[in-house]
Amino acid sequence: MNEFIWPVRVYYEDTDSGGVVYYANYLKFMERARTEWLRSLGIEQDQLRDRDGILFAVRSVTIDYRKPARFNDQLDVVSSISQTRKASLTFQQRVVHSAADSAEPLVLCDAAVKVACLDASTFTPRSIPETLLAEIAGER
Amino acid sequence: MNEFIWPVRVYYEDTDSGGVVYYANYLKFMERARTEWLRSLGIEQDQLRDRDGILFAVRSVTIDYRKPARFNDQLDVVSSISQTRKASLTFQQRVVHSAADSAEPLVLCDAAVKVACLDASTFTPRSIPETLLAEIAGER
Amino acid sequence: MNEFIWPVRVYYEDTDSGGVVYYANYLKFMERARTEWLRSLGIEQDQLRDRDGILFAVRSVTIDYRKPARFNDQLDVVSSISQTRKASLTFQQRVVHSAADSAEPLVLCDAAVKVACLDASTFTPRSIPETLLAEIAGER
Amino acid sequence: MNEFIWPVRVYYEDTDSGGVVYYANYLKFMERARTEWLRSLGIEQDQLRDRDGILFAVRSVTIDYRKPARFNDQLDVVSSISQTRKASLTFQQRVVHSAADSAEPLVLCDAAVKVACLDASTFTPRSIPETLLAEIAGER
Repeated sequence: MNEFIWPVRVYYEDTDSGGVVYYANYLKFMERARTEWLRSLGIEQDQLRDRDGILFAVRSVTIDYRKPARFNDQLDVVSSISQTRKASLTFQQRVVHSAADSAEPLVLCDAAVKVACLDASTFTPRSIPETLLAEIAGER
Repeated sequence: MNEFIWPVRVYYEDTDSGGVVYYANYLKFMERARTEWLRSLGIEQDQLRDRDGILFAVRSVTIDYRKPARFNDQLDVVSSISQTRKASLTFQQRVVHSAADSAEPLVLCDAAVKVACLDASTFTPRSIPETLLAEIAGER
Repeated sequence: MNEFIWPVRVYYEDTDSGGVVYYANYLKFMERARTEWLRSLGIEQDQLRDRDGILFAVRSVTIDYRKPARFNDQLDVVSSISQTRKASLTFQQRVVHSAADSAEPLVLCDAAVKVACLDASTFTPRSIPETLLAEIAGER
Repeated sequence: MNEFIWPVRVYYEDTDSGGVVYYANYLKFMERARTEWLRSLGIEQDQLRDRDGILFAVRSVTIDYRKPARFNDQLDVVSSISQTRKASLTFQQRVVHSAADSAEPLVLCDAAVKVACLDASTFTPRSIPETLLAEIAGER
């Protein structure tokens, strides 16, 4: 199974006064990684919307927060696809921190994110285009 | 079981170019509601941190997105506590929209959010103070 | 000159690891206040867009940051209109904190925000509708 | 005068339902660029805070919004320093878009951002450390 790795730097905007990354912001990091993973396959979401009239919307998220990230941390989002259906995809995504003094990257949080293919104007389910499914299948 | 209801208005800041509320922002709405629910019990989180040396951090979230919210929508976050442990609480939270033309409020998304009590400096688990647990128990 | 006051509570989402409200987030507070001020005049921006085909977009901001706000602070955004033109409005807005132990509310930041009326699809300048200008004129 | 260029990709999180980047989010892009510019000089802000007890806080922003950015746009933040004082720096920053079909990059917005050096615990003004000023002087 292929994994796609996308680096994320933690800026002030991502943190809160607890001194750590605000919990909702990991979902932003994960969306950036999904977008870049699609882009790496030649899939641009603005073209999907304008040309094919579809968009991807998150249907569900299950996320465990294990360790906090802090200002200035250099993180990686590691993503793979665990399930493809006719009108949805499920991503496994984890945010890891490669600390200088440890052999293994530390898992800060990990998530399953189910994304549905929708009609861009009506928000009703649509089949994922064949060519796109083929691209994605090549990644599994 | 008691439910705590907190109103949220959708502003431009909450939406994205898909025309709907960005998926991570529902977690902000839910945190506001948890904070206000604690406040309604007389519990201020800055005092918890400064006086008791503890803070609450989210351990896990399971969230289903059912219908999108849009700019200007007036929403309610409906919260209850489904589980209290020695060092953690689990909230059930749903975001609902009371459309003018429907009898029932529409559920836009619902979530289970597990929150752990942590030492504010070491981020290690701490027992929830007795008085606080008693307050919370009165809510179930 | 009329002033419109809109309360804002500071949540974790608004703060950063410096322990204070992140500087960009005051612009969110100010937009909420402008939206609610328009709403108080009976003007809903989604109707402006869908019915009149116009939207308001910020053209410029000049903002001075004087004192930081912190988690849990209860703030007010105090807004007035300093200039109305054919196709733009300028708001004076300040964020204040009414500390328990001071007679005067503390000004945390203040800004001039110029907002242009635009065609919602082409983003080119449009005259502010007469009825809307009349509503606004009544506020000065 | 040196210019520091930092690329920024526009994700869904940055946009609003007007279809463009939300106005406050350009301030996030500019802060990322300032942080990376300091990093490129060997200056890490978490070390400044933990070792030297200082942090940089924004004192004022003057920003003009000229053209909107949209989802998926690849932008650059172009930054330079226009003024150094004992306890403050002023950055000139503009966000530009290099469209495929134009010779010149399009300026989407430009800003002057004054940043003060503060004591990290008291938030009172502090002199910028000599070594840091020397690094910065080398950039002008």
